[in-house]
Amino acid sequence: MKKLKMAMVGGGVGAFVGKIHREAVRLDGGVEVVAGMFNRDPAQNAQMGDAIGVAPGRLYASWQELIAGESSLPAAARADFIAICTPNHLHYPVAKAALEAGFHVMCEKPMTLTRAEAEELEDLVARTGRVFGLMHTYAGYPMVKLAHDLIARGDVGKVCKVVVEYAQGSFRKMDFSQPLDKRNKWKMDPACAGKSCCMSDIGVHAAHLVEYVTGLKIESLLADLSSFVAPKGLDDDGSVLLRFEGGAKGVLVASKVATGEENGLRLRIYGDRKGLVWKQENPNILRVRAQREPEQTWKRANPYVREVSESSARASRPPAGHPEGYIEGFANHYLNFCDTIRAVDAGDTPTPAMLDFPGVHDGVRGLRFIDAVVASNAAGGIWTPV
Amino acid sequence: MKKLKMAMVGGGVGAFVGKIHREAVRLDGGVEVVAGMFNRDPAQNAQMGDAIGVAPGRLYASWQELIAGESSLPAAARADFIAICTPNHLHYPVAKAALEAGFHVMCEKPMTLTRAEAEELEDLVARTGRVFGLMHTYAGYPMVKLAHDLIARGDVGKVCKVVVEYAQGSFRKMDFSQPLDKRNKWKMDPACAGKSCCMSDIGVHAAHLVEYVTGLKIESLLADLSSFVAPKGLDDDGSVLLRFEGGAKGVLVASKVATGEENGLRLRIYGDRKGLVWKQENPNILRVRAQREPEQTWKRANPYVREVSESSARASRPPAGHPEGYIEGFANHYLNFCDTIRAVDAGDTPTPAMLDFPGVHDGVRGLRFIDAVVASNAAGGIWTPV
Amino acid sequence: MKKLKMAMVGGGVGAFVGKIHREAVRLDGGVEVVAGMFNRDPAQNAQMGDAIGVAPGRLYASWQELIAGESSLPAAARADFIAICTPNHLHYPVAKAALEAGFHVMCEKPMTLTRAEAEELEDLVARTGRVFGLMHTYAGYPMVKLAHDLIARGDVGKVCKVVVEYAQGSFRKMDFSQPLDKRNKWKMDPACAGKSCCMSDIGVHAAHLVEYVTGLKIESLLADLSSFVAPKGLDDDGSVLLRFEGGAKGVLVASKVATGEENGLRLRIYGDRKGLVWKQENPNILRVRAQREPEQTWKRANPYVREVSESSARASRPPAGHPEGYIEGFANHYLNFCDTIRAVDAGDTPTPAMLDFPGVHDGVRGLRFIDAVVASNAAGGIWTPV
Amino acid sequence: MKKLKMAMVGGGVGAFVGKIHREAVRLDGGVEVVAGMFNRDPAQNAQMGDAIGVAPGRLYASWQELIAGESSLPAAARADFIAICTPNHLHYPVAKAALEAGFHVMCEKPMTLTRAEAEELEDLVARTGRVFGLMHTYAGYPMVKLAHDLIARGDVGKVCKVVVEYAQGSFRKMDFSQPLDKRNKWKMDPACAGKSCCMSDIGVHAAHLVEYVTGLKIESLLADLSSFVAPKGLDDDGSVLLRFEGGAKGVLVASKVATGEENGLRLRIYGDRKGLVWKQENPNILRVRAQREPEQTWKRANPYVREVSESSARASRPPAGHPEGYIEGFANHYLNFCDTIRAVDAGDTPTPAMLDFPGVHDGVRGLRFIDAVVASNAAGGIWTPV
Repeated sequence: MKKLKMAMVGGGVGAFVGKIHREAVRLDGGVEVVAGMFNRDPAQNAQMGDAIGVAPGRLYASWQELIAGESSLPAAARADFIAICTPNHLHYPVAKAALEAGFHVMCEKPMTLTRAEAEELEDLVARTGRVFGLMHTYAGYPMVKLAHDLIARGDVGKVCKVVVEYAQGSFRKMDFSQPLDKRNKWKMDPACAGKSCCMSDIGVHAAHLVEYVTGLKIESLLADLSSFVAPKGLDDDGSVLLRFEGGAKGVLVASKVATGEENGLRLRIYGDRKGLVWKQENPNILRVRAQREPEQTWKRANPYVREVSESSARASRPPAGHPEGYIEGFANHYLNFCDTIRAVDAGDTPTPAMLDFPGVHDGVRGLRFIDAVVASNAAGGIWTPV
Repeated sequence: MKKLKMAMVGGGVGAFVGKIHREAVRLDGGVEVVAGMFNRDPAQNAQMGDAIGVAPGRLYASWQELIAGESSLPAAARADFIAICTPNHLHYPVAKAALEAGFHVMCEKPMTLTRAEAEELEDLVARTGRVFGLMHTYAGYPMVKLAHDLIARGDVGKVCKVVVEYAQGSFRKMDFSQPLDKRNKWKMDPACAGKSCCMSDIGVHAAHLVEYVTGLKIESLLADLSSFVAPKGLDDDGSVLLRFEGGAKGVLVASKVATGEENGLRLRIYGDRKGLVWKQENPNILRVRAQREPEQTWKRANPYVREVSESSARASRPPAGHPEGYIEGFANHYLNFCDTIRAVDAGDTPTPAMLDFPGVHDGVRGLRFIDAVVASNAAGGIWTPV
Repeated sequence: MKKLKMAMVGGGVGAFVGKIHREAVRLDGGVEVVAGMFNRDPAQNAQMGDAIGVAPGRLYASWQELIAGESSLPAAARADFIAICTPNHLHYPVAKAALEAGFHVMCEKPMTLTRAEAEELEDLVARTGRVFGLMHTYAGYPMVKLAHDLIARGDVGKVCKVVVEYAQGSFRKMDFSQPLDKRNKWKMDPACAGKSCCMSDIGVHAAHLVEYVTGLKIESLLADLSSFVAPKGLDDDGSVLLRFEGGAKGVLVASKVATGEENGLRLRIYGDRKGLVWKQENPNILRVRAQREPEQTWKRANPYVREVSESSARASRPPAGHPEGYIEGFANHYLNFCDTIRAVDAGDTPTPAMLDFPGVHDGVRGLRFIDAVVASNAAGGIWTPV
Repeated sequence: MKKLKMAMVGGGVGAFVGKIHREAVRLDGGVEVVAGMFNRDPAQNAQMGDAIGVAPGRLYASWQELIAGESSLPAAARADFIAICTPNHLHYPVAKAALEAGFHVMCEKPMTLTRAEAEELEDLVARTGRVFGLMHTYAGYPMVKLAHDLIARGDVGKVCKVVVEYAQGSFRKMDFSQPLDKRNKWKMDPACAGKSCCMSDIGVHAAHLVEYVTGLKIESLLADLSSFVAPKGLDDDGSVLLRFEGGAKGVLVASKVATGEENGLRLRIYGDRKGLVWKQENPNILRVRAQREPEQTWKRANPYVREVSESSARASRPPAGHPEGYIEGFANHYLNFCDTIRAVDAGDTPTPAMLDFPGVHDGVRGLRFIDAVVASNAAGGIWTPV
């Protein structure tokens, strides 16, 4: 298996998610970080490069230089793909430039600040044929993949109702009377973060999770956003009614002010044959329920999981009973993303299992979701197409 | 302690909730069922009277005869209160007649079919000074009372967000192509059940639970009702956005088509200091969470519960670690309801602890909730005052 | 259904378990407390009689007078059975006298102080044909009955390993430097409590639970008892290795010093086809597991429970999803005990379902267990037949 | 931070635990696998080397050649440490040779087949000053480290009782009538696995976990081993009574025939101030209980964890609410092991936090435990010093 070369933009000293990206790619050993523009501060940039073994010549002072520099290298040496772990507002220009320069791209979410940018990237991916991954982490968990496959097989029947919550309490400990520190600025300054805070940061994960697992698109929604502790105009909480194509309905709740919650992403799906429950904080199980039958708890990496979900099996490392976590979820996306790159670069057609990672279309869906949520809320709560 | 005499209307052979009422009053021993009009069928009526030891002379053929007959007895012999366990449409006329005849009343929910009826009862209770209890069972659980008291004391801080779910899957096993049997007719024939099915049957419990625990009134709401398996026009599922007086917001989800759920009433409350989680199916614990502190699990009947909640302590029978359940929840309402009757009948003022049971004002709130939900939904989803 | 008349010895003002007995019999309405010797203190005795409506003429100053007094009444008036809720050392003399006087008996555990007494009662029950119930509460829970029936049907296969824990922490808050109060004296003064404390108080429940659920007798055991906080010679903790007839093995752990535990009775059973897990503090579920199959959670009062366990179905009041608790467990034993009395008194043969309550043979087993535990421990830990 | 060079013996194609070792070292990026003797089959050995990027010149045909070959390299090129993932019987000779050749060693458990061998390695480590790690994985979990630190700080008080279970059901699906496949041969052929199967495979983990967390040594034990499905003489289940230095007592249960269990390692510890509960299958929480206080659930990576446990904080990657798992547990041992190597190689004294990984003394303890268990059982169950 060919080791792929990764260049990273963002994710430097002090960054949370960039570190997870690096841990995730290292875990399975098929990727090497060869280049980076981690921090704008040269000293920090050098420090990170040194820490992870990037040659000084491959450390760049700007993302523009990174793309130019890597492009100028011989094919065998240059990065195969670029991972974008910057603040939100840079996702679009970096991704655009990277795709245009012929690189595959792994991008953090939300994909862009606007729907127009997202659709432009969608076109660009189609035109360039480059592989584009979007880090909607939670679809990387094996039991989420199982849920997706159980629904796709028809075992759950026709989905009629969905409840998804993404509850965090982190804003409860923030002091909004002080200027934002860098990391929070990314999430809360509209110039960096886009037109939404809570919905753009975590609501969009919940929306993606629901669409991924059910295989259904949200057709319209009605939102009520709040700013309980955040400055006016910046949502830190929201509740959204959902209507899906085909008639299913649902509720999405996202909050940064849910006191006492850590990373409470929870999903309930009710079909006409089965109901499913999954919770991110105990991710190795999926509860499967039918009316008047004992509730079932499916556990990761069992033969009975493998039988119905190849993608869940592919996404499992240690045997049943030995839990996996968040980093492994990231790693699973990278595994499929990289296998797809290898196939594409070899001129082969990736298998469906390889293609089981979020991509540019999901990114467009995310921006349409954010747009619709903000518009619905601004109109005082009306049904708004997505 | 004076044993109170209870007359029962409805709750005969084959009825679910009437049996629970009788078990609940027997449990604590302060009530005796002395009269009844249990079933309209005379043979069944006699059978029930015999089974529970009601003298044949106190078995009545109609509720009108029951009220007349009991009224004609000397004060020492006649029923102290009338428990109404009939289909919904009879709650109002029976309650009205009972109050007018001077009886205290314990009534099943929803209190009436219409808001006008509810308000009429509210006036009548004020005018007659009779004690009126409404069986919103779930407020009878000790850990729900604790949640109420923690919020009332300010321990949770200002409540900002509420998520309440009441998920049942029972309609999944019903055959709607067949004529409804008697019990289901009550819940699904608008002539018996009122203008809503799911919201009137269980949504109203969730709404009451939220208002009771938070001490906040729902100011306005926005609803999306569905008929997934029930006949058109009859809601079997709904999602409701909530806005409370003072600025808190919330979501209420109620469903009869939530495949695999039994009696999934779950409550999450987020204040600016603490968050609370309670689940009816494991009711003896309350989770109390604060940001960056270990999550706490409070357990029924402990000294630390008693210290902050007299009403929770009053509502506990066996010591900590020995679970209580649903019947005990009913019984707790009866305990307070009966203590209040004893105080009122003795010319005393009931203590606040005695008054901790749902009453006629909650009944009016319930009808206003149902009205608003139906109206909001009919209008295609607009914010509607409650 | 004939209402049975109950006389009670012990369980007076301030007693914990006597109150539960009364709540349990009231719950289902088939029993009336007609006589009692509740407290030795006359004022307290009168207070209790008044509180629960026992006629003054049926309040007795001693248990001897109660038996004599009730015996002298006409058959239609006198008590049908005597419930014994005294300190342990009185179980035997009261039960003996009651049986000899022709009363049926419901007795608290442990049945007697010595094995010889227990065997004498066993003979007496056989000779008199009276119905004898022993309040091993936990066998009254519906999901314990289900576990028993699943094993009896062979669904679990041959049982090979059992782990049962009964962990309480209550001794952690006791001040052993002070003289014991009355209630603790019962449990800790060998003259009242017998030769063991922890094992006699709770270990014997665990032993009964295991034998009831598996249907297997403990053949021999090896014990290690401790006195961590209790006075020397009084066990407050113990671990016991178990060997069952037919080759199964097990471990029994009981402790009064398990800090933070409330009433932590937990059972795991491993057969060659299935494994079962039940926990008293969340008693409405039973987990059923097989190798390489999703774990199942069976929930009380479902049709699928009824199909395999009539005794579990009989022991359920409200429908699935509406939890039952500890008092209901007591009540279930009384239901079967009373049905058996009715059958025996009518000259009929009780059905197997009626006979599903612990009795005098279980009481003998309990004393043999206690004897063996104490003997094994005293010998420094050797295998000792039960 | 200097990248360390690792050579691996065993863990080749088809091996479970070798793969985990490699994932674990890759995760944090401080280690490079430079040499290996993975499989004895040359083709498989080459295949593995190729897959993970080991240069053909560093692939060896035997562990003896690996040690000789690496020793012959210049210091800057040769492996810093050797990871031993072979069948049990090879741990000793490989570790011995590696230490004598000056390599640091990371070894799978049980460390050796006999206590004499273990003690010889202990001497050798002392003599050579080499760093020796032993892969008792479960001590690598952050919440286990927290439990250790809470006890070490005195927060739990004097430990008096411990219950540890390690329940697996895997033997239920094995066909013992067939010759053992390679992987099972390692665990079940006494020539490879030593004198015990279940106790040597998983019981020794439980024993280590208990000694690590409590900081107490098991002084003596009494064992009852069984062969329910495995060939006679090969334990597949056992229960062990424990006595610790200082007076604490405990129970250890290990089983390979616990139908329906996956990797059910569960620990309960009761001190005179607090009780702790930890379960491997949901490892990111630790329950902390005190009598008459709400139960606390401590969650990984919170500030309140960091405040009391530096070692737990060091062992956490993503923030609270983002679960970690089994591979991360391995990785945590490697992190500390490698930091210790770096310190030792630099002539520095490792900090206590660095030294928080199992080592050669734990290996000796393990063999003493296995010896005592087998001896106690063979003697029919007598207290045996460890």
